[in-house]
Amino acid sequence: MDDMINVSLSQAGDRVVILDQTKLPNKVEYIELATAEDVYQAIFHLKVRGAPAIGICAAFSMYVLALSMPQEDYGEFCREFLKTKEHIASSRPTAVNLKWALERMEKVVMSDPSSPVPKICEKLKKEAQAIQQEDMDMCRRIAEYGLSLIKDGDGILTHCNAGPLATSRYGTALGPIFLGKERGMDFRVFADETRPLLQGARLTSYELERGGVDVTLICDNMASMVMKNGWVQACFVGCDRVAANGDTANKIGTSGVAILAKYYGIPFYVLGPSSTIDLDCPTGADIPIELRSPQEIKEKFYSQPMALPETKCYNPAFDVTDHSLITAIVTDQGIFREPYTSSLCGRRE
Amino acid sequence: MDDMINVSLSQAGDRVVILDQTKLPNKVEYIELATAEDVYQAIFHLKVRGAPAIGICAAFSMYVLALSMPQEDYGEFCREFLKTKEHIASSRPTAVNLKWALERMEKVVMSDPSSPVPKICEKLKKEAQAIQQEDMDMCRRIAEYGLSLIKDGDGILTHCNAGPLATSRYGTALGPIFLGKERGMDFRVFADETRPLLQGARLTSYELERGGVDVTLICDNMASMVMKNGWVQACFVGCDRVAANGDTANKIGTSGVAILAKYYGIPFYVLGPSSTIDLDCPTGADIPIELRSPQEIKEKFYSQPMALPETKCYNPAFDVTDHSLITAIVTDQGIFREPYTSSLCGRRE
Repeated sequence: MDDMINVSLSQAGDRVVILDQTKLPNKVEYIELATAEDVYQAIFHLKVRGAPAIGICAAFSMYVLALSMPQEDYGEFCREFLKTKEHIASSRPTAVNLKWALERMEKVVMSDPSSPVPKICEKLKKEAQAIQQEDMDMCRRIAEYGLSLIKDGDGILTHCNAGPLATSRYGTALGPIFLGKERGMDFRVFADETRPLLQGARLTSYELERGGVDVTLICDNMASMVMKNGWVQACFVGCDRVAANGDTANKIGTSGVAILAKYYGIPFYVLGPSSTIDLDCPTGADIPIELRSPQEIKEKFYSQPMALPETKCYNPAFDVTDHSLITAIVTDQGIFREPYTSSLCGRRE
Repeated sequence: MDDMINVSLSQAGDRVVILDQTKLPNKVEYIELATAEDVYQAIFHLKVRGAPAIGICAAFSMYVLALSMPQEDYGEFCREFLKTKEHIASSRPTAVNLKWALERMEKVVMSDPSSPVPKICEKLKKEAQAIQQEDMDMCRRIAEYGLSLIKDGDGILTHCNAGPLATSRYGTALGPIFLGKERGMDFRVFADETRPLLQGARLTSYELERGGVDVTLICDNMASMVMKNGWVQACFVGCDRVAANGDTANKIGTSGVAILAKYYGIPFYVLGPSSTIDLDCPTGADIPIELRSPQEIKEKFYSQPMALPETKCYNPAFDVTDHSLITAIVTDQGIFREPYTSSLCGRRE
């Protein structure tokens, strides 16, 4: 999987190198980001995507960009650093991890006004590396906990993409698969293609195939038949936000997978960093759901439109899976089960 | 809906006119079939599709082609008629309705050796018209029964295409919607796009939009959220084969819709001609499921491939919905409910 690390420093250390995810699966193309505008465009156009990966990319970018800012005067350096940071933060304003990573980098600059700028730059590099390392450790812990829930040879169904491409390594929902693979275990993964943006086809099936995992791509509406065939022993999905009662927002279609799993008696696991648990959000009803353009359903990826221009579409980006459908929530802090209201809250004590 | 009759005779009566369904929704193009080869190609390339529509097209084609066969000698006429019939039958060998319609036409020729050929041709025309009329009547009866199960203003979710395009008029699963519309009722229909061949987008949303019905196109994986929102009062789907115990084979994804409907407490109805009920088939386990090419999932309709060439796909064309998930089976002979083993069998007595 090492060849799939999607954010790194160039050999000379003066550029950020990313895997351009918009070109997958047809082309593996690494691109170098040298200017603030390069970084902005890469994030804005989803060349790098997945909350943790975006944060890591932004952190390394701030280090690289800092190298060509005024090195003599701390005040001038600071002004330029903050201006650049604000610009990059605006590339995807809703991405929580982007803001969080940029603020960690800013803190390095602000907390050390007496050091020479080149020394501050060295500390920025270390901070970016720490952010990446922490993400790897977190994914690793999630993977360990997740792996304890399955056994060699199991069939796993997943939805959307919560793998290495979205993080620094291992991924969240796919972490147990890759960790098990490292230990000589074999799983049979079924990847929902995940309409309308096809992250399951373009990214999940790609990275599993490249990682040597036995993967079968299916259309979302085939999950019921795959489960009925007895091929699935567990469902692993990621999460965008977990409410205090365990209700979980994730990519559209996740709740349908959970209902099918319940019907067929298959355990359904949500995997994600503990930072995704939002105790200030009491239930799933409090999670706002982003509605996206009809064009994504009718036209995107196709060589010609698949419905009339006047035909309405309903295109929610996420849905909420009721906590009663979730067998366990797996985070870097452990495995949480019903009643979530007490298990998830107890977590912080 | 009259403008959407998809099989008819040309004004001069010497050609068959069909709506080319492969061009929808981007182009409404009627094409004329004048030769046996035209007919073969139209059926083979799915320009006309849907079991009843194929049967009607074949029947009218046999009449039109008969007009230019030898009119003086019955024996010569017969030989050419049978040769042409066999050729057209081979265009889609698994389509039961095609064979059935062609045999009805053959019977007209065989049962009347003493009549002059032009007179036989007149009878062939009447037989084709009868096949079309019977299909209309059957769809109409299904529509009446189906309409009795819903009320004005209801939200209806449907999967794949079982509308007028697949039949002569009204359709099966969409029949109640169109009949209700004629009577001034309004429904809000949610059409699953139905991957991988997108019949829901290309055909169902097209014909509902053109018919003035309030239709919203969704990806298959959005059905759970649409139901959770309280927008669906009933699910209407077609069927390819119904076993004696009520288990129903239909387009892939149908069983998933049925499981979601059960979870959300929404009635799930199967609608189809009584000829679809196969009492010789005890359960769904006895229905063979056609597996299709990975190319349909990874490449078809797209401007470039969406997964690696080596990535496996599982692509069943149909799935089986367990009878316990079906609220009722609606046919031209009435509404059948559990226990299906007795209700469906009793039907014939």
